[in-house]
Amino acid sequence: MADVVQLHKGEADGLVLKERNDAVLRLTLNNPPANVLSIALMEALSAALDEAAADETIRVVVLASGGNLYSAGHDLKEMTAHRGDPDGGRAFYEKTLRMAADLMLKIAGLPQPVLAEIDGLATAAGCQLVATADLAICTDTSAFCTPGVNIGLFCSTPMVAVTRAAHPKQAMEMLLTGETIDASTAKDFGLVNRIVPKQYLRQVVDKYSAVIASKSPQALRIGKAAYRAQAGLPLPEAYEKAVAIMVDNMLGPDAKEGIGAFLEKRMPEWKGE
Amino acid sequence: MADVVQLHKGEADGLVLKERNDAVLRLTLNNPPANVLSIALMEALSAALDEAAADETIRVVVLASGGNLYSAGHDLKEMTAHRGDPDGGRAFYEKTLRMAADLMLKIAGLPQPVLAEIDGLATAAGCQLVATADLAICTDTSAFCTPGVNIGLFCSTPMVAVTRAAHPKQAMEMLLTGETIDASTAKDFGLVNRIVPKQYLRQVVDKYSAVIASKSPQALRIGKAAYRAQAGLPLPEAYEKAVAIMVDNMLGPDAKEGIGAFLEKRMPEWKGE
Amino acid sequence: MADVVQLHKGEADGLVLKERNDAVLRLTLNNPPANVLSIALMEALSAALDEAAADETIRVVVLASGGNLYSAGHDLKEMTAHRGDPDGGRAFYEKTLRMAADLMLKIAGLPQPVLAEIDGLATAAGCQLVATADLAICTDTSAFCTPGVNIGLFCSTPMVAVTRAAHPKQAMEMLLTGETIDASTAKDFGLVNRIVPKQYLRQVVDKYSAVIASKSPQALRIGKAAYRAQAGLPLPEAYEKAVAIMVDNMLGPDAKEGIGAFLEKRMPEWKGE
Repeated sequence: MADVVQLHKGEADGLVLKERNDAVLRLTLNNPPANVLSIALMEALSAALDEAAADETIRVVVLASGGNLYSAGHDLKEMTAHRGDPDGGRAFYEKTLRMAADLMLKIAGLPQPVLAEIDGLATAAGCQLVATADLAICTDTSAFCTPGVNIGLFCSTPMVAVTRAAHPKQAMEMLLTGETIDASTAKDFGLVNRIVPKQYLRQVVDKYSAVIASKSPQALRIGKAAYRAQAGLPLPEAYEKAVAIMVDNMLGPDAKEGIGAFLEKRMPEWKGE
Repeated sequence: MADVVQLHKGEADGLVLKERNDAVLRLTLNNPPANVLSIALMEALSAALDEAAADETIRVVVLASGGNLYSAGHDLKEMTAHRGDPDGGRAFYEKTLRMAADLMLKIAGLPQPVLAEIDGLATAAGCQLVATADLAICTDTSAFCTPGVNIGLFCSTPMVAVTRAAHPKQAMEMLLTGETIDASTAKDFGLVNRIVPKQYLRQVVDKYSAVIASKSPQALRIGKAAYRAQAGLPLPEAYEKAVAIMVDNMLGPDAKEGIGAFLEKRMPEWKGE
Repeated sequence: MADVVQLHKGEADGLVLKERNDAVLRLTLNNPPANVLSIALMEALSAALDEAAADETIRVVVLASGGNLYSAGHDLKEMTAHRGDPDGGRAFYEKTLRMAADLMLKIAGLPQPVLAEIDGLATAAGCQLVATADLAICTDTSAFCTPGVNIGLFCSTPMVAVTRAAHPKQAMEMLLTGETIDASTAKDFGLVNRIVPKQYLRQVVDKYSAVIASKSPQALRIGKAAYRAQAGLPLPEAYEKAVAIMVDNMLGPDAKEGIGAFLEKRMPEWKGE
């Protein structure tokens, strides 16, 4: 049974809902109506991710949203309110954008796989969250855009994630026109993995995350770290890293148990956490 | 109304036609029958791009071609004529290929988005132009190839652009077999963004470029520069660059106006050029 | 006519079958039932590739497999047998994984294009072989997976190849879920170039490899080396390399012959080997 708790008291109370189902941690953005990434929400999400990173019983993190909008990105009202600061808002904008970048790096560097569950529109930094997650499942009515050009603020930080998920021309079309793409186009672009009808979204995400959570926790952690370790390196250096990681993996308890179970045609019992 | 003028007098007269529609500059390769990239054409195109770069009233550059062939790439007759040079042509080939590479880097580095409009066959360095452009729209009868292997001259410089636009195996199939791919395959590969029937090509490109030209000029310039600044960097360094760029963007007049207009539900009036 | 010979005597006898058809070398993994990459098989394949690299009359290498399984990856029985070694198997695992990585680097660095011909399941390091090959053609009943997470041993080295062939989310789905993708999905992901019905597989591969073998051998060698030389470099440096390579290519005998033949509308006769 799911156990829903609010994660933070005080200012950030309830901005990120936490729900635990066995080894799956479900984090739900809860900042209606547009789930904007205010400072408070980013702090709450960052803290929730830190807790997840430190909890070896969590094997998958799902990043969902309440309402009909996955996330509209940064909190433009909050940012605009700081235009009157003595520095015109520079310090606050640096804080905001740096915090968002650190949040994305935290997701990419999290020991556990992060699965974005999208139902609705994901724009700007909301689209960046989707692009940054390791995996993404969306409803067939979901949509994605990076519309900063429409408001004079190019989606430069979302671009970092989007251009690493899709081909350059595909990313540039989103970024330069600001137009919204549908779920099917997002799948073609490599932004999402699967599209499901709305009524089955939760069911599919639960099943999918349970599948991943059933794998060796050691292997999942090693694998996600290995991805980051070798990404972007020249081929020989990438293999250098990957070979060293895989040798250690082979000597760990889960590989011993897993390969043994495979050869003996039985189910493995994971030891490692 | 369109204002068509020839760009260069003298040797390069008319090799690149220039047409201005509001903030959109349309450059048309005009070197029939195959729009080969002779030294003269590359000089004319390079000069036209330099002018565009310096003109803040230009917000989008369209790169089109006259006739039924987008471009057949380098001018093989011109190159062959230099085989009799004392150095066997080395200096001329260096000049030619260096000039083409600089042209591609100029397109990639241009402050404005570059949209390739293709109707017909784009081969070798012609295909490289398409791959290099930020965006590309082609007719459904357009086709693309990098056929250097057929003439003993591997498309090594086009490869630089094609392998950055498409997946490695897709690019290698084009390069190793020299075979021609159709518009639909080119879209799958990430070489073009949209395919339109021939009779609507100009209409769609005009509308599409007008959409981009309607965006904040500041944001467009910042965005294109930001793409190049972060491309290929490791994730943390890429965010470092993007955050700094976006903070400056936020403090500029267009973001102030654009976000203000968005929050006040009115149309923005761009100040920045 | 095809001339089938066994490549190695002794331990590796018959693990890799060699068949020569004109300029095409066909290497067939012959380690039933799962064509696992045992040390002996990797040594045999590596030796066969070394011979191919040194033989200028070979212009294409086809990498096929006997039976219904392309390759199941590493030899888990062989690896498990070394768990009793004084070091728990570390030295042997380092040897195995290093040898596999070197094999992949050898394929990537081979002077000739390597075409994987897949009929059946390619898993783990078997999938890595497919991802590493320059080109791949498979039957419509072929399938692909990186299922290390199922046995506690994340496919970290296959990941190096798969994440360079496909988009990150597509690769991560394979790696984190361990699920098997069909041929059509593999083509969408960029893992294979073409899908053919089983009864036509050999015919299509033979024709396809003959097409490549008919190209200038010089251009093919230059092109494959150029790909590796510029891969992953920033754009200006990539062009620096490619321009230098292409100038030399232009001055070689095959470009002279090929361009001459093209301009004279006759078939080229390749001189270079």
